[in-house]
Amino acid sequence: MTRSLRLLVRAIAPIVAVWLLSAGIASAEALASWNDGPARRAIEGFVAAVTTPGADFVPPAERIAVFDNDGTLWVEQPIYTEVAFSLARAAQMAKADPSLMAKPAFRAAASGDPKQIAALSEEALLHLVVATHSNVTTEDFAAAAKAWLAKAQHPRFHRRYETAVYQPMLELISYLREHDFNVFIVSGGDADFMRAYADRAYGVPADQVIGTSSKTRFEKRGGRWVLVRTPEMAIDDKAEKPPNIGLHIGQRPIFAAGNSDGDLQMLQYATSGPGRRLGLIVHHDDAQREYAYDRASKIGTLDKALDEAAGAGWTVVSMKGDWKTVFPPAAAVRRQTAPPESTARPTGRPRN
Amino acid sequence: MTRSLRLLVRAIAPIVAVWLLSAGIASAEALASWNDGPARRAIEGFVAAVTTPGADFVPPAERIAVFDNDGTLWVEQPIYTEVAFSLARAAQMAKADPSLMAKPAFRAAASGDPKQIAALSEEALLHLVVATHSNVTTEDFAAAAKAWLAKAQHPRFHRRYETAVYQPMLELISYLREHDFNVFIVSGGDADFMRAYADRAYGVPADQVIGTSSKTRFEKRGGRWVLVRTPEMAIDDKAEKPPNIGLHIGQRPIFAAGNSDGDLQMLQYATSGPGRRLGLIVHHDDAQREYAYDRASKIGTLDKALDEAAGAGWTVVSMKGDWKTVFPPAAAVRRQTAPPESTARPTGRPRN
Repeated sequence: MTRSLRLLVRAIAPIVAVWLLSAGIASAEALASWNDGPARRAIEGFVAAVTTPGADFVPPAERIAVFDNDGTLWVEQPIYTEVAFSLARAAQMAKADPSLMAKPAFRAAASGDPKQIAALSEEALLHLVVATHSNVTTEDFAAAAKAWLAKAQHPRFHRRYETAVYQPMLELISYLREHDFNVFIVSGGDADFMRAYADRAYGVPADQVIGTSSKTRFEKRGGRWVLVRTPEMAIDDKAEKPPNIGLHIGQRPIFAAGNSDGDLQMLQYATSGPGRRLGLIVHHDDAQREYAYDRASKIGTLDKALDEAAGAGWTVVSMKGDWKTVFPPAAAVRRQTAPPESTARPTGRPRN
Repeated sequence: MTRSLRLLVRAIAPIVAVWLLSAGIASAEALASWNDGPARRAIEGFVAAVTTPGADFVPPAERIAVFDNDGTLWVEQPIYTEVAFSLARAAQMAKADPSLMAKPAFRAAASGDPKQIAALSEEALLHLVVATHSNVTTEDFAAAAKAWLAKAQHPRFHRRYETAVYQPMLELISYLREHDFNVFIVSGGDADFMRAYADRAYGVPADQVIGTSSKTRFEKRGGRWVLVRTPEMAIDDKAEKPPNIGLHIGQRPIFAAGNSDGDLQMLQYATSGPGRRLGLIVHHDDAQREYAYDRASKIGTLDKALDEAAGAGWTVVSMKGDWKTVFPPAAAVRRQTAPPESTARPTGRPRN
C-alpha cells in the first residue's frame, strides 16, 4: 500500500464505519412490523441459513422468491381490485357506446348500484372482465389501468388501492432483497393490470410480474405496430402457477408466499426442491384491522393449503398475531406515491 | 456542511476523481471491437440521445433492449447449435434405449455419420428436437444441456459453442448495461436450452431469456413436485416475438438487434414506438472470419428485413466492415468460462 493510499483509506474509514453501522440498523429493523413470534423467526432463520456459508447456502443467482398478489400483498376483499376496475371500465365503455347497455352486465356496472352489481352471476362478471380487458392495445390498457388506480379508493379503508398493501409484506420484500433475493409476483390477476402499479407499490419491475395474460395480436394501427389484447386468456392460478414460473423465471424458487388454495401448487413446487426452503401462508384472521376469512370464503378460499401446511412445514402467518400493523403509515404512503407517475423505485432493485 | 464533513469530502475527492476518470476510459473503450463507422456511430448516438436530459431522454426503467440469439449473439452455421445438441442427445438416448433405433432419425443421429445426418428431412430433424426436448423434467433437461455445452465444440472454430459468441455484441451488451439498459434475449431457440449458458456467456439471467418453450406438466415424481416438458411447444419466432415480449417484458423495447427475417416483427415493434429508437441487423458478409449468407440461406434467412431496413432506418452491421474481431480472445474465454459451472456474472447486472 503506498503512503498516499494509506492516508486516503484512513480518511475514509469513519465514513465506511458509519455506513456499515446504518446498514446494520436498517437490517435489524427490516421486519419492524412483525411481532417477535414463530413467523418472524422462521423468516429470519431461513434467510440466515441460505445466506451464510455452510450446508444450506444458496448462491444469490438462485435466491428466487415468488409472491402471490391478491390477499398476499394487497387487500382482496370485498371484491378483487381488478373486478372493481372492470366494473368502472365497463361503466365508462357503456357511456361511450350506449349500445352496450343492451347487455345486463354492462347495465348493472353503469348503474353503480351495489345491489345490481352484487346480483351479477360469476359468469356475468367474467364476461365483464374479458370485455374490458380485450380489443385494446396493451399500451392503451396500461394507461386506463393507471388512470383508474390514480383515483379509485378502497371502499372500507378509504385509501387508494395501491396503498392498501400490507406493510409487513413490503418489509419482507425489502428484507429478502437486502439479502440478494430476486423477487417475483406470481398471481391470478392480469399481468398488465399489476404492471400498472407493481413497480410503484412493491418496487417489482414489469418483467418480474407474472399473471393471467391475454393472448395478443401483432398488428398495425394508425401506422404503428401494436399489440392488441384478444379475449383469449391464459390463466395463472393453482396448477398453472408452477408451469408459468418455469416459463418466466426458468428456476425453481426457494421461497413462496401465498394466502389461498390458488397458491397451493406454487408452495408445493417451491418447497419440494432440495435444500432449505420456505413456504409462507398469510392467514386472514383479523376482522378488526382487515378481514377474517379462509375455508368458506368465495374470494381467497384457504382450505386445502391450510390442511397441508403443517405436514409440509409451511409457516402460517396470523395477520392478527404476527403483524404489528397492517397498512403503511400515511406519511410513507404519501412518499411512496407522489408523484403517481414517478418512475422511482421505492423498494426496488437497481436496474442492471 | 460541518467542518468534519468538509474535511472528509476533501479527503475523498481525489479517489472520486480517479474513479470518474477510469469510468470514462472504460466507456470510451466499451465498443473497442467496433470500427469507427456508421454502425458504431449509430449506436453511440442513440445511447447518448436517450441517456442525456432533453427531448429524447428515456428513464432507465424504460431502457429495454432485446437481442435475438442465433446468428446475432453466437454462430448459427453450419447448423443451429440446438440441432447439434439434439443430435447428440438422440444418439445418447438411442444408446440407453435401443428400441429407438427403429426410427430412421435416431439411427442417423446415432451413426454420427455427417452424410446420413445431412440427408435427414426437416420433418425428421424437428421430430428429433421434440423427442429430445420432451418427457423430461425441466431440471434434468437443464443438466443435460449444461453437460453437453461443457464439452461440445463448434466443428470449424474448435471452441466450445458458448465461446463462439461475437465479441462486438458482448461489448454492445456491456455498453448498454453501463447506460442502465435492461437486456433481454428474445430468440427462436428453446428458452431452457439458452438458460443453460446465457448467464455465463452473456450475463443474462434465466428470467431475462425468452424463447421457444415447451408446455410443462406439474406432477409428482419420486416424491417431489416437478415440471415435466411435454411435446407441445410455443414457438418464439417472427410474428410471435412481439406478443412474447409483451407477455414476458410488459413494455415496448427501445432497442432491438437481430440478423434474420425471424427478427423482422421484433424490429418493427421496437422501432415503431414514439421517441428515439434503434434497430440493428447483423449482416453475415464475412466468409473468411465467419460465414457469408443472407437471402438464399435456409438458416438465418435475411431477405424481407434487409429490404425494409433502409426505409425503417435500421442500422445494418457489416460483420466484415464494422467488426475488428469476431470472437473473444482466447484469454477472455478462459476467464469467462472457468470454472464452467461458476455462477459468476462476467458481464451481468448485479442482482437486486
